[in-house]
Amino acid sequence: MESHHVTFETVKTKETSLPERVAEQISQLIIDRHLTAEDKLPNEFELAAQLNVGRGTIREAVKLLAARNILVIRRGKGTYIARHPGEIDDPLGFAYYPDQLQLAMDLLEVRIQMEPWVAAVAARRASEESIQVMRENCLLVEQDILAGVNHLPKDMEFHVSIARCTQNLVVPKLIPIITYSVGLFGAINGNTLLSETIIGHRAVADAIRDHDPAAAERAMRDHLEQNRVELDAILEELRRTGGEWSGQSILPPLR
Amino acid sequence: MESHHVTFETVKTKETSLPERVAEQISQLIIDRHLTAEDKLPNEFELAAQLNVGRGTIREAVKLLAARNILVIRRGKGTYIARHPGEIDDPLGFAYYPDQLQLAMDLLEVRIQMEPWVAAVAARRASEESIQVMRENCLLVEQDILAGVNHLPKDMEFHVSIARCTQNLVVPKLIPIITYSVGLFGAINGNTLLSETIIGHRAVADAIRDHDPAAAERAMRDHLEQNRVELDAILEELRRTGGEWSGQSILPPLR
Repeated sequence: MESHHVTFETVKTKETSLPERVAEQISQLIIDRHLTAEDKLPNEFELAAQLNVGRGTIREAVKLLAARNILVIRRGKGTYIARHPGEIDDPLGFAYYPDQLQLAMDLLEVRIQMEPWVAAVAARRASEESIQVMRENCLLVEQDILAGVNHLPKDMEFHVSIARCTQNLVVPKLIPIITYSVGLFGAINGNTLLSETIIGHRAVADAIRDHDPAAAERAMRDHLEQNRVELDAILEELRRTGGEWSGQSILPPLR
Repeated sequence: MESHHVTFETVKTKETSLPERVAEQISQLIIDRHLTAEDKLPNEFELAAQLNVGRGTIREAVKLLAARNILVIRRGKGTYIARHPGEIDDPLGFAYYPDQLQLAMDLLEVRIQMEPWVAAVAARRASEESIQVMRENCLLVEQDILAGVNHLPKDMEFHVSIARCTQNLVVPKLIPIITYSVGLFGAINGNTLLSETIIGHRAVADAIRDHDPAAAERAMRDHLEQNRVELDAILEELRRTGGEWSGQSILPPLR
């Protein structure tokens, strides 16, 4: 059977270099041998002999795999399998999108569709431990807000910990992707809606703790509608100032 | 404001190497200058002077960015910005998950939640051009099925072309992620349900063409329920043979 990664075909360079092909072989070896986090990669000599290439090629291939977070090179200790192999920062390249406001609107549309469902499933399936972690994250967000520091990193962790309550492997991985643009809201609108964030998060957390899917879904939807209010305010501001939206110029860089 | 990429923090190595830091500077330069596909990167000399590092470091940084599909190195031609910068094959590292069957089940749960909604939005917003492309992709799947060749690559393209009908920037990028495991079904169950695939796809395509959101949603849900039937058959087979599921051993490699 052929690979099914069809839509990414254009992503690959037409001419695959030797280190690139060797990187794929090493990657396959990791998968076949079920090597996981903290397993050490066989050493250069062994790999070179096994794959019938020079040690320089192995070194180049290892660098490629490290750049993709499949391997982690520890100076003086050796090369290890990454804790979350192949998972990278900004996996869809959102930072390179020219129109960050359009991206924010489209992400919000996906969030409003996904996350109320996620909250409902979380309420249905959450274990006591996952509820515990989620509630702790809820408190950490509040602490950051009340301390006047940027709460957005903890805010995203809170949403991820809700996703973990679903016991679905994939959902927690999707949350950091679809919440990519949250920094944008905070950057523009300041702290006007922070108390609503606290109240909104509490409502979601309580409903999940009480295993009440309908309440969790509703609370999450209400919470996300707040984001829509903020985004509409940005659009209104742009209209008022007659400013045409031209990418990220009025925004701080997202990374 | 701090970066909001919090959940990926663990992904980065604690000690950032010089080429890694230079890679980040070049990446920021691409974003700030709005460089896009087919723009050539400034040459090594210029970058070395501008970032105040040696040309060897620039070369290493460029290799890192090429490994992440941010740059494309063309032999004898120079270094260019990638067509979809930062977008990579298998961006969540699914290939490294030890339990591919659990992954397939969890992905299917997400698909059944997302894709009927995607089909409904597609029916509401599709332009005539996007409908045209979607219908052509529908035919290409049928041609592959009738020719007896693996239709799964075209099948995924069909689902992506439905997502493009939504006019949402993000949705078409999520489809290749959540359809990651489709190869698994084809690999196990053979061609038993191929005629149902043809009928199911046509029902979705017709509803979108007719701008009928309710029909599109229903047709997509029915189509995906077929996948659930196939997955249940796999589980049943495993139970029957008394086989405990132990990763990918009974499956062909996914990549």
